[in-house]
Amino acid sequence: MGKGSIGITILGSGVIGGGVATVLLQQRKLLAERTGIDLELLHVAELDREKHTVKGAPYCTDAGVAIDDPRTRIVVELIGGTGAAGQLIERALRLGKHVVTANKSLLALRGPELFALAREHHACVGFEASCAGGIPLINSLISGLVANRIEALVGIVNGTCNFILTQMTRHGLSYAVALEEARKAGFAEADPTLDVSGRDAAQKLAILASLAFDARAAESDIFVRGIDSLDATDLKFAGELGYVVKLLAIAQREGKDRVSLRVHPTLVHADDQLAQVGGSFNAVSIYGNSVGHVLFYGRGAGRTPTASAVVSDIVQIALGVTPLAFKQMNLLPRDVKMKVLPFEDLQSRYYLRLTAKDEPGVLAQVTKVLGMHRISLSAVLQREANASQFVPVVITTHQAREGDVQKALVEIDKIKSLRPPAVCLRIIDPPKEFGGS
Amino acid sequence: MGKGSIGITILGSGVIGGGVATVLLQQRKLLAERTGIDLELLHVAELDREKHTVKGAPYCTDAGVAIDDPRTRIVVELIGGTGAAGQLIERALRLGKHVVTANKSLLALRGPELFALAREHHACVGFEASCAGGIPLINSLISGLVANRIEALVGIVNGTCNFILTQMTRHGLSYAVALEEARKAGFAEADPTLDVSGRDAAQKLAILASLAFDARAAESDIFVRGIDSLDATDLKFAGELGYVVKLLAIAQREGKDRVSLRVHPTLVHADDQLAQVGGSFNAVSIYGNSVGHVLFYGRGAGRTPTASAVVSDIVQIALGVTPLAFKQMNLLPRDVKMKVLPFEDLQSRYYLRLTAKDEPGVLAQVTKVLGMHRISLSAVLQREANASQFVPVVITTHQAREGDVQKALVEIDKIKSLRPPAVCLRIIDPPKEFGGS
Repeated sequence: MGKGSIGITILGSGVIGGGVATVLLQQRKLLAERTGIDLELLHVAELDREKHTVKGAPYCTDAGVAIDDPRTRIVVELIGGTGAAGQLIERALRLGKHVVTANKSLLALRGPELFALAREHHACVGFEASCAGGIPLINSLISGLVANRIEALVGIVNGTCNFILTQMTRHGLSYAVALEEARKAGFAEADPTLDVSGRDAAQKLAILASLAFDARAAESDIFVRGIDSLDATDLKFAGELGYVVKLLAIAQREGKDRVSLRVHPTLVHADDQLAQVGGSFNAVSIYGNSVGHVLFYGRGAGRTPTASAVVSDIVQIALGVTPLAFKQMNLLPRDVKMKVLPFEDLQSRYYLRLTAKDEPGVLAQVTKVLGMHRISLSAVLQREANASQFVPVVITTHQAREGDVQKALVEIDKIKSLRPPAVCLRIIDPPKEFGGS
Repeated sequence: MGKGSIGITILGSGVIGGGVATVLLQQRKLLAERTGIDLELLHVAELDREKHTVKGAPYCTDAGVAIDDPRTRIVVELIGGTGAAGQLIERALRLGKHVVTANKSLLALRGPELFALAREHHACVGFEASCAGGIPLINSLISGLVANRIEALVGIVNGTCNFILTQMTRHGLSYAVALEEARKAGFAEADPTLDVSGRDAAQKLAILASLAFDARAAESDIFVRGIDSLDATDLKFAGELGYVVKLLAIAQREGKDRVSLRVHPTLVHADDQLAQVGGSFNAVSIYGNSVGHVLFYGRGAGRTPTASAVVSDIVQIALGVTPLAFKQMNLLPRDVKMKVLPFEDLQSRYYLRLTAKDEPGVLAQVTKVLGMHRISLSAVLQREANASQFVPVVITTHQAREGDVQKALVEIDKIKSLRPPAVCLRIIDPPKEFGGS
C-alpha cells in the first residue's frame, strides 16, 4: 500500500468496535499527518441497530456487503467468538483483503489455519489487540526482539483476574466478594467463567508462546488452573512468606527443544515487578538471550486501550509494513508443532497448606511422605493452636517435580490427623537473565 | 528488500560493534528461519587491530571501502561521537545505503538533517538502540502507539545514574562512593561526565520527545541537572517522606501546543513503578490519550541488549519494513520546531531543604517569603537539634511556578538564620491517564 486513501470496514460495534470507530474518526487528521495516508472508515457493520451509537460512523447491517465493497481494503473484525467472526474473516481473506482482529479465542483455535489462508491470498492479519490490549507486545515480540532466542515469557494477561486478586490481597476480601467488586467496577462480565477459569489467559498464552518459540501451540497444550477456587487464607500466608499471588501465564524453554506452558495462580516474590502490578493492569516479562529481561506494562483491556492497538495494526497495514513482514515471517506456523513438556515433568517450587489436628507427630508424617517423593522443605509456618481443634501448616518446598508432588499429595491427604484436601500452589523464581547464550 | 541475502557492514568493533557481529554470526540461521533472509556480515571496519576480537568476523581497517562495497546494503555505525561517525553515515546515505546507528549524541545534534538526507536518497535510518538499549521503545512509539496523542513521557534512560542512585538510596552511600561502585561494576566510564551531568539523558529525551510530539526538539531546548551534586541526606529525607530520588527525563504536553522538556533528579512516589527500577535498568512510562499508561522496562545499555536492538533494526530494514515506514512518516522533522515551555513557567511540586540555626522564628520567615511568591507548603519535616548548632528543615510544596520558586530561594538564602544555599529538588506526581481525550 502507500500514500493515498485506504478504505476500512469494521465488523461489530460493541465496546471495542465503537472505540475503534471513534479513534478513526477523531484522529483521522493526526494519523494522516503522521503517515501520509488517509484512513477512510467506509462501513461499520452491526446487526443490532441499538449499537449504532458512534456519531458520524457509516453504519450498515450487512457485514458481507461491507466486506465485498471493492473499496474495502482492511476488514477489522471485532465481533468476537469463533462462529460468524471466523466465517467473515475467511470471506475477507479469500478476497485478498487484510484483516485486523482482537479475537484471541479464534486465533488460539484457528490461528495457524487463518494465517495460512491469508498468505495464500497475499493478505495479512494484524492481531496486536488479541493479547494485552494496548501494550505493543506482539509487535515487540515479532520485530523488536527478533534477534533473541526467547528463554521465558511470564505475564499477567487477564485484567479481570488481576483486579480480583488485588482486591483479595490488599483488602483481605474473599473471592466471591472481590468478584462482586470487579463486576461493580466494570472489570468482570455477567458470566466471568472465561476469565476466572484461566481460559482467557491460556488463549493469549497460546498466541504469545507460538510467536516467542516459533512453533504452533494450542490452548489444549496448556495446563490451566483459574482463580475461582482460591482461598483468601492462602493469599494472606503468601504475604507473610514474602510473596504475592498472581494469575500468571508462563511459557519457558525447558532443555534443548521443549517448552513448558501453564496458567495458574502463582506465588511471586513481593519485590518482583509482576507482584506490584495492581488492579486491571497487565504486564509481561520476557527473557531473551540477548536482551535479557524486558517488561511491558499497561492496560490489557478496555475500549480506548484496545482501540489503540487495533488502529496501530490498521496503520501498519496501510503503510504496507505488516503485509511485507507477514509474507516473510512464518508467524503461527501450521506445520511446526511445539514440543510441550508434560506437566508432570515440570520442576517448580511449591506452597502447600495442610489443615492439621494440633497433636504431635503430624509434621513428621508429612515430611516423611515428602522425602519419599524427593521433595525437600524450604520453610514451614505453623501457628499455635487457637480455639479450633485444627491448625494450618504452611510448607514451601525446594525445586521438585510436579508429578512427585501430586503423588505425595494423594498420600498426604490420607494422613489421619489432617483434614483433606491439602492446598497446593506453585511458586515462581525469576528466570535467569542471559541464561541461554 | 525481501527474500535473499543482504550484505551488512559494521563500523566500529568496540563493545557494541563486537556484540552485534557476534549476534549476526551466531544467530544467522535463526534469523534466516524467522525472516526468510540471509543476513551476511561482509565487513567489520575497525582501525584498531587490537579490537579485531570476534572470531569469524570479516575485519578490515578501511571504513570507506567497506561502505562503498556494492554488496553492502546496510551500514551499522557503532563508532560513536559526532565526528567521523557523522561523515561515514553521510557517505553511506549518499550512496542510498540504509544506516543503523546507536549514536544518540549524533542524532540529538544532527538527526533531522541526516534523516532528510536519507529520505533524499531513498534510504532510511534505524535508531532503536539510540535510546533505552534493548527495550523496543522507539518502535513502540512510532508504530504501536501511533494512534495516540502522547500526553507525557517520563523515563529513567541512563543506567549509570540509576545504578549510582540505587546504591545511594539502598546503602546510604555518598555520591562519590557510589560512583566508585558503579566504576567497579562496569556501569560508569573513566570519565562519567556525559552520564552524571544528565547530558546523555537529555540527548535521548531530545530524540524521544521529537517522536512523541511530532516536532523537532534539540538538546538545548531541555533543562538539565545531573546527579553529581546530590547529597545522600536528601535521598534519606525523600525516603522518610515516601519518595525515591531518580534522574528522570520528562517531556509533557502543556496546554494546547507546548511541551515541557527536562532532565533532573526527581522525587518519585515510592509506589510509582519508576521508583522501583533498580540498578542499571531503564524504564519509560508513556501516557497516551487512547492507550492510557504504558511502561517499558529493560536494560538500557550493555553489549548484548544493545546488540538486540541493533539487529532488530537490521532485520526490519532487510524485510523492507523500515524503508517503507521511514519514507512515509516524517520522523525527526526538520521544519516543525517544538514549542517548548520556558522552564520558569513550569508548574511542579518542590522539595526544599534548608539548614537553619536552631532558634525561634526561622520557619515563620521562610513561609512568609514562600507565601509572597504564591508558594504554599504541603509538609514540613524538622528534627530536634542535635549537638550541632544547625538543623535541617525539609519542606515540600504544593504546585508552584518554577520562576517563583527560584526567586523565593534567592530571598531565602539571604535569611540570616539560615546557612545557604537551600537545596531544591522537584517532585513529580504521576500524569493523569486519559487526560487528553
